[in-house]
Amino acid sequence: MAAITYELIKTEKHTGARLGKLHTPHGTYDTPMFMPVGTLATVKTMSPEELKTMGAGTILSNTYHLWLRPGHDIVKEAGGLHKFMNWDQAILTDSGGFQVFSLSKIRDITEEGVHFRNHLNGDKLFLSPEKSMEIQNALGSDIMMAFDECPPYPASYEYMKQSVERTARWAERCLRAHARPGVQGLFGIVQGGAYEDLRLESANALVSLGFPGYAIGGLSVGEPKDVMNRMLAFTTLLLPSDKPRYLMGVGSPDSLIDGAIRGIDMFDCVLPTRIARNGTVMTSAGRLVVKNAQYARDFRPLDEHCNCYTCRHYSRAYIRHLIKCGETFGIRLTTYHNLYFLLKLMENVRQAIREDRLLDFREEFFEQYGFNRPDAKNF
Amino acid sequence: MAAITYELIKTEKHTGARLGKLHTPHGTYDTPMFMPVGTLATVKTMSPEELKTMGAGTILSNTYHLWLRPGHDIVKEAGGLHKFMNWDQAILTDSGGFQVFSLSKIRDITEEGVHFRNHLNGDKLFLSPEKSMEIQNALGSDIMMAFDECPPYPASYEYMKQSVERTARWAERCLRAHARPGVQGLFGIVQGGAYEDLRLESANALVSLGFPGYAIGGLSVGEPKDVMNRMLAFTTLLLPSDKPRYLMGVGSPDSLIDGAIRGIDMFDCVLPTRIARNGTVMTSAGRLVVKNAQYARDFRPLDEHCNCYTCRHYSRAYIRHLIKCGETFGIRLTTYHNLYFLLKLMENVRQAIREDRLLDFREEFFEQYGFNRPDAKNF
Repeated sequence: MAAITYELIKTEKHTGARLGKLHTPHGTYDTPMFMPVGTLATVKTMSPEELKTMGAGTILSNTYHLWLRPGHDIVKEAGGLHKFMNWDQAILTDSGGFQVFSLSKIRDITEEGVHFRNHLNGDKLFLSPEKSMEIQNALGSDIMMAFDECPPYPASYEYMKQSVERTARWAERCLRAHARPGVQGLFGIVQGGAYEDLRLESANALVSLGFPGYAIGGLSVGEPKDVMNRMLAFTTLLLPSDKPRYLMGVGSPDSLIDGAIRGIDMFDCVLPTRIARNGTVMTSAGRLVVKNAQYARDFRPLDEHCNCYTCRHYSRAYIRHLIKCGETFGIRLTTYHNLYFLLKLMENVRQAIREDRLLDFREEFFEQYGFNRPDAKNF
Repeated sequence: MAAITYELIKTEKHTGARLGKLHTPHGTYDTPMFMPVGTLATVKTMSPEELKTMGAGTILSNTYHLWLRPGHDIVKEAGGLHKFMNWDQAILTDSGGFQVFSLSKIRDITEEGVHFRNHLNGDKLFLSPEKSMEIQNALGSDIMMAFDECPPYPASYEYMKQSVERTARWAERCLRAHARPGVQGLFGIVQGGAYEDLRLESANALVSLGFPGYAIGGLSVGEPKDVMNRMLAFTTLLLPSDKPRYLMGVGSPDSLIDGAIRGIDMFDCVLPTRIARNGTVMTSAGRLVVKNAQYARDFRPLDEHCNCYTCRHYSRAYIRHLIKCGETFGIRLTTYHNLYFLLKLMENVRQAIREDRLLDFREEFFEQYGFNRPDAKNF
C-alpha cells in the first residue's frame, strides 16, 4: 500500500477541474486544496488548533529551513516533524531546491548536486538528491518532494533542456535514496519552463519512474499569467489521472481558481500569511490594506461576508490599531482571516466542481474581487 | 450600588492575607488575584479566549498608551474598550501617571497637572486629574485609577511630602471629574515612598475621600525588598478592610506571595509577558531561559509539573527553536505558560489562605523555586 493515494471523485463537465480525495498517513483531504505554509515548523503566528478550526488539512514545511534550524537530526530525535510541532494532520515538505536557488546568491550546480552558501551566515553547504531525501526522511513528512532544479524565468531553451534532463536523473536518484516509501510518499516535479516540448519531455521522464504524485514546478516565477495557464493546461494533460497534481508556490485567489480549472489538486503559497503580516487582507470585495489611515474609525469587520474568528469579533479599527502598534495579535487576526479566506475559497471551488459550474463561479468571484477591473494587477 | 464592591471571605489565621471576591460590572473574581497587562488593548500575543482558558479574570490596560494610540475617542466610538478588544471580563485602567513619569524624560509638574513630551514623537502633552478621568471614562474600564505622582526611589522627605499632599488634592479632583461612578469604580492611590508617616498621611487623606478601592503605589520602584514588605505591612493596616487593596506593578512570584501575606488583593505586572518575549519562563523549579543552547535537544515540557496548553503539547527544544528563529508562536507559548503559572500560583495562594497555611506554602514554594538559594536574586 502506497503512503499517498489519490481518489478521483469526478471531473468537472466544462473544464479539467477534478474533485478528489488525497489519502495520507495522517488523514484524508478533499481536493482541490490549499496548503498553508509553515516554513520553520510553524505557520507564522498560528497555533495548530487555529489551523484546524479554520479548516486547514495539509500544511507545508520547508526542508531547507529546517535543515539549517533546528537541524533535521533534532526534529528526528523529537519523534519527527508532526510530534515536534504538535500537528497530527498531513505535512508536505519541499525538497530544499527552490530555497537553494532563490535564497543563495552564490551556487555551483553539478551533476552530483548543488554547492551553495546558506542565507543565514554564508556557510558552505551541499544539497543533493540523496541529502534532500535524508533530511525529508528524518523530518517524516507525509509527502516529500524530489530534489529538482528550478531555473529562473526566462531561461534559454538550451539551459532548460539540460536542467530538465538533470532533474529527471535527480528524480531517479531520489527514488532510490528514499528510505521510507511505505510511510512517506515522494512526488516528482515536472519542470520545463515555458517550453511545451520540454514540459512533455520532463513529464514523460517522471511518469515513467512512477511517482505517487506529481508537482508542476517552475511556474509563478515571473512569467505572464497567460503563460502559466497555458503551461498548466498543457502539463496536467500529460499526467496520469489517478495521481494528485500539485502546483507549487501559487496562492493568489485568481491563480487558485485558474489552476483548479486546469486540473490542479494541490496548492501552497506564503502569500496569505506574508501579506497578513503587512496588514493586507483578502476579502470578498477584493484586497484591503487594513493598516491604511482610512480604517482608523471603521468599525466593520475586515470582510462583511466572512464568518471567520477575526471577522466575528474584531473591527478594522482595532486590527489597524494593533498592526500600527506592532502588536502580534493584529497579525494573528489578519493571518487567520487570510488563510480562512483561501480555505473557504477552495471549499467553494470544490462545490462549484460538484455542481459543474466552476466557470460561472470564476466569473462571479473575479467580478466581486475586482480581477476584471482595468487596475486588476493591484489585486 | 457602587460599580465595584469587595466581599471579604476570610482572613488567614497567621498572616494578614485575605480571601475575597471582587464584584465588578463585568463579573466577580476571587482574590488575591493577578491581572495580566494588556497595554495597548491586547495582552501581547494572546487572544481573549486564551486568557480565559488559562483562568485570567481581570486584565489591565494603559490609559497613557491608549490615549496616544489609537486615541480614547476611537475606543469610545467603538463602544468602549471591552467591545474594542473583544474582552467581556473586567478591565482596570491605570491613570497614565506612571507612564508620564517613567517614559517621558522632560516633564514639568504643576498643581494643575503635568506637561511632558510623549515617548513616540516628542509632541507636547498635558495630563491632569480631569484629563485622566476623561480618558478613562471614554475607555469605559471597570476600575479606574486616580491620577497621582509616582516619585522615584529614593526621594527626599520634603519632596515626598509635597508630592503626597498634591496626590491627595489630585485624588479629590479625580472624584469630582469622574463622570460615570455608577458603572466605573475609581480607586485612590496611597503614596509616601518609604516614609511611614507619609504613607499614614496619604492613606488617611484618601480614605477620608471614600474610594471603593485603594492601590499602594510607589513600591517596586527600586527599593530593597524588605523595605517594600515593611511598607506593605504598614500601609494595608491603614486601609479599610471592606475595600480591595491593589499593589501596582508587582508580579514576581515571591512578591505576589509576600504581598498576599500582607493583605494585598490585586496585583498586576508586565513581568510574565515581558520575560516570555525574551525566552524566559517561570517554572516550579525556578526560572528557565529556554532560548539557551542547553535546551536544543531537551524534549521535556517547560515545566514538568505544569498542565498548561504549552506544557501539554510542546517541548523546550521546539520552543527554543521558534524563539531562536524569531517565530511569534514561540512567544505565544512562553507567554501563555508564564501567565498560567502566575494565575495558578494565585489559585494556590487562595487555597493556602483557605487552609490557613500560607506561610508553609511560602516556604515550600520559595524552596522549590530557588528563592532561598544564595544566588536567589537571579531568580
